[in-house]
Amino acid sequence: MAIKIGIYGYGNLGKGIESAIRHNPDTELVAVFTRRDPKTVKIQTEGVSVYAAADAPAMKDQIDVMILCGGSATDLPVQTPELAKYFNVIDSFDTHAKIPEHFEHVDQAAKESGHVGIISVGWDPGMFSLNRLYANAILPGGHDYTFWGKGVSQGHSDAIRRIEGVKDARQYTIPVESALEAVRSGADPELTTREKHTRECFVVAEEGADLAAIEKEIVTMPNYFSDYDTTVHFISEEELQRDHAGIPHGGFVIRTGSTGWNDENKHVIEYSLKLDSNPEFTSSVLVAYARAAYRLNKEGQDGCKTVFDIAPAYLSAEDGAELRKHML
Amino acid sequence: MAIKIGIYGYGNLGKGIESAIRHNPDTELVAVFTRRDPKTVKIQTEGVSVYAAADAPAMKDQIDVMILCGGSATDLPVQTPELAKYFNVIDSFDTHAKIPEHFEHVDQAAKESGHVGIISVGWDPGMFSLNRLYANAILPGGHDYTFWGKGVSQGHSDAIRRIEGVKDARQYTIPVESALEAVRSGADPELTTREKHTRECFVVAEEGADLAAIEKEIVTMPNYFSDYDTTVHFISEEELQRDHAGIPHGGFVIRTGSTGWNDENKHVIEYSLKLDSNPEFTSSVLVAYARAAYRLNKEGQDGCKTVFDIAPAYLSAEDGAELRKHML
Repeated sequence: MAIKIGIYGYGNLGKGIESAIRHNPDTELVAVFTRRDPKTVKIQTEGVSVYAAADAPAMKDQIDVMILCGGSATDLPVQTPELAKYFNVIDSFDTHAKIPEHFEHVDQAAKESGHVGIISVGWDPGMFSLNRLYANAILPGGHDYTFWGKGVSQGHSDAIRRIEGVKDARQYTIPVESALEAVRSGADPELTTREKHTRECFVVAEEGADLAAIEKEIVTMPNYFSDYDTTVHFISEEELQRDHAGIPHGGFVIRTGSTGWNDENKHVIEYSLKLDSNPEFTSSVLVAYARAAYRLNKEGQDGCKTVFDIAPAYLSAEDGAELRKHML
Repeated sequence: MAIKIGIYGYGNLGKGIESAIRHNPDTELVAVFTRRDPKTVKIQTEGVSVYAAADAPAMKDQIDVMILCGGSATDLPVQTPELAKYFNVIDSFDTHAKIPEHFEHVDQAAKESGHVGIISVGWDPGMFSLNRLYANAILPGGHDYTFWGKGVSQGHSDAIRRIEGVKDARQYTIPVESALEAVRSGADPELTTREKHTRECFVVAEEGADLAAIEKEIVTMPNYFSDYDTTVHFISEEELQRDHAGIPHGGFVIRTGSTGWNDENKHVIEYSLKLDSNPEFTSSVLVAYARAAYRLNKEGQDGCKTVFDIAPAYLSAEDGAELRKHML
């Protein structure tokens, strides 16, 4: 019997979940919830209905795991604890500084209701965090490096769009290859923000806009661009649609460290992702952890967990004996 | 109070454990056991004694975790189940085909005695296995690739040493860069043994030996070399000592797969290791899992486990709240 999954929020992430469920035959989509008028939301899975968000609690007995697809700024801090009253829940909460607080809220709600909540699932936080933890446990006293990209940064693209005279924009974060190579060499470089990443912007300007002024406003924008070497390209709307419609991303987690009685041997552990679609990859991780939440709850566990607390075997559709035989 | 560790077998791996314990302040070496005459074995840690292997059971109350450092062919199949009667045990059993059988034996002994045994810990099996599992869970229906090297293969070096006229030898396994690139491109290539790795041999011949005959015997050796493009270099004993004394290794675990309603988006997950010392890195992984075995047993768990069954947080010396704050 398949694990019955609900999707709460049907944006890019929700659509990715729907498609990931299709790739995992032991999971089944049973409902999509939206804050929009459900009649206006068309989904791809035949025979599955869209409901108003407010109707979710009434379906608590029909859903094994609810996957929350809202934003970290205002949606998830409220929704994840609230829905943990009724469901096992998974979210991709990614405001790193607020994770401890979010954890406490979800933990309390999930323990009271006897459900499992897994927060901050995806690739960063998520798979990148896992790789930081494993590498730190293996090489204590080493150095951690995280690089992001090449990929589209939604927040930075939005910041450009708010500039007067800008019609649309797409911003790519790009790791600096020479910095990556220095890290991989085991040289333990100290790298500034500017040395690690560059930013490349593709901007569609309004007709008659002052391009020089737009470019200056971008490259000097505090927090977003002023600490980086930023390149700005003005392109047509057609070019933006044609060449920059995707949402690729990725990055590198590298730890270097040494072993030996006198630290005479160096080691480099590297994990990297190259993703055509950031939200679809994140969704794929969320569905794997939904499987884990379902199983852990069946075993009688409850409360909030993160990727650090889940034994890897819970993520796989195969059982332990199969995994030991084929994958160990 | 530090976790009290015993080392069972003091070869390259045992020495690596001793040094890894020094890098992990929450662990403490309490005894080294050897099948040699203990008086002939000198260790580096001051104040710690070397005992005969047969004396180990008598020290069961002084050791939290015994790390077994014997070979997979004949040592570990006997030693790990035997010592699991008295201790929490960790081994690096790496005969992939016999893991299910070894698991059963250790599981039975560890359950009867109320201990935890973690088998097949290291990097392959071990960290590579974990990365295969995570990547498979995230991208079902994708393709797995494992490349090894550049690194010294002990078994292949030994095979060369057994040839008549060979005094000493060192064999390196080297991944083919163009094959790695083809995999990373997402092209899902089907690769033959020959296309994935080359083998490079450095051979010290006896005086007057028939070099052409040695080279021919190497490159045509079934199982070991005949399926590979193999290069043989004859060098002096001094050159071997000077340039090939290390035991480097490493490799790459790559999974490619697609997401999207029509599989329209490709993804590449890559994990790689570049290790100056194969046994010291393996030892570092073993010590991290010793920490996990100790904690799991304290929680009341017993029986055999693998890296698949251990939640990552158990490997870290930091507690859950610290990990969520700094590493997630």
